Amino acid sequence: MSHMKLAHPLPGIAGLLVTRPDTAAPLTDLAEMLLRKSTPTFSSADRELVASYVSYLNDCIFCSESHGAAANHYADQSDFAQKVWSDADKNAPSDRTRALLAIAKKVQSTDFKVGQELVQKAKDLGATENDVHDTVLIAAAFCMYNRYVDGMGTTCAPRGDASYAAMGRDLAVDGYKRKRV
Amino acid sequence: MSHMKLAHPLPGIAGLLVTRPDTAAPLTDLAEMLLRKSTPTFSSADRELVASYVSYLNDCIFCSESHGAAANHYADQSDFAQKVWSDADKNAPSDRTRALLAIAKKVQSTDFKVGQELVQKAKDLGATENDVHDTVLIAAAFCMYNRYVDGMGTTCAPRGDASYAAMGRDLAVDGYKRKRV
Repeated sequence: MSHMKLAHPLPGIAGLLVTRPDTAAPLTDLAEMLLRKSTPTFSSADRELVASYVSYLNDCIFCSESHGAAANHYADQSDFAQKVWSDADKNAPSDRTRALLAIAKKVQSTDFKVGQELVQKAKDLGATENDVHDTVLIAAAFCMYNRYVDGMGTTCAPRGDASYAAMGRDLAVDGYKRKRV
Repeated sequence: MSHMKLAHPLPGIAGLLVTRPDTAAPLTDLAEMLLRKSTPTFSSADRELVASYVSYLNDCIFCSESHGAAANHYADQSDFAQKVWSDADKNAPSDRTRALLAIAKKVQSTDFKVGQELVQKAKDLGATENDVHDTVLIAAAFCMYNRYVDGMGTTCAPRGDASYAAMGRDLAVDGYKRKRV
């Protein structure tokens, strides 16, 4: 049960966003900026993959499933994100993405001071400074979103529920700033 | 050394904000909304105290020192925040703030699903649902800001440096959306 009365009984962060439009504005602006951008060296599929991977490591069902579904939609593969969650070293879609996922995992941990060697490895594989910046900030932001969703006691469909596929498609196609109700 | 070339050599998050104004906008909007608001049951002093306490628990020197100094400015006490960092149970400024700090500590941990009993305790002491919401989101947001600052390898003055007092006063008086250069 959510720790506040929701304006609409929507799952996960969605119910919080419609209940508190004041804080929803910067929270959705940040997600829109970080996740729907696509550059030649850091695609939207990979950005959503980083978001879902961090959320999976944080054991946040709503965020990992919804952003995993967005990554799957961009990649046009039904288990693109889930394969990475199970073994990122083995199943990362490219060497560069593997290096960015390693940075994200470090940021997610309690010992989050990223060392120069992880950054240099990503750069050697073609990542730009802005790609490194965005990876660090996506990972950090999902340490916030995950804590917001689960700290507020929101509820959501169980892991693997079919409803997440449509949610992921909506995030990829319509983005984060649409009206949710 | 920061993992990206900074537009200006400012310490902590300040250098990142001037280098990436696109992500700076939602990041500063969120801080402005959460920290400079003051309600009868959750003052700006207590909001900055929660921010600095979470940052202290996360061992982020820049954020704990700068937001601790902002809390000290609001409270007009030179060691208001530092006393709470050393022993929040003993030195919280009120029973209600103690209960909100306990929620913030839970959100900061890796096991961040806040239980109903912590929420009920804060409400019994006069906290509103919006106070609980803002406490959870401040704590979650500083789990992001701390990781952004230290994940990007930024540098700052050491703990206890005299420069933080002026920084905290500027945050309290001028807020988060002013131009920093």
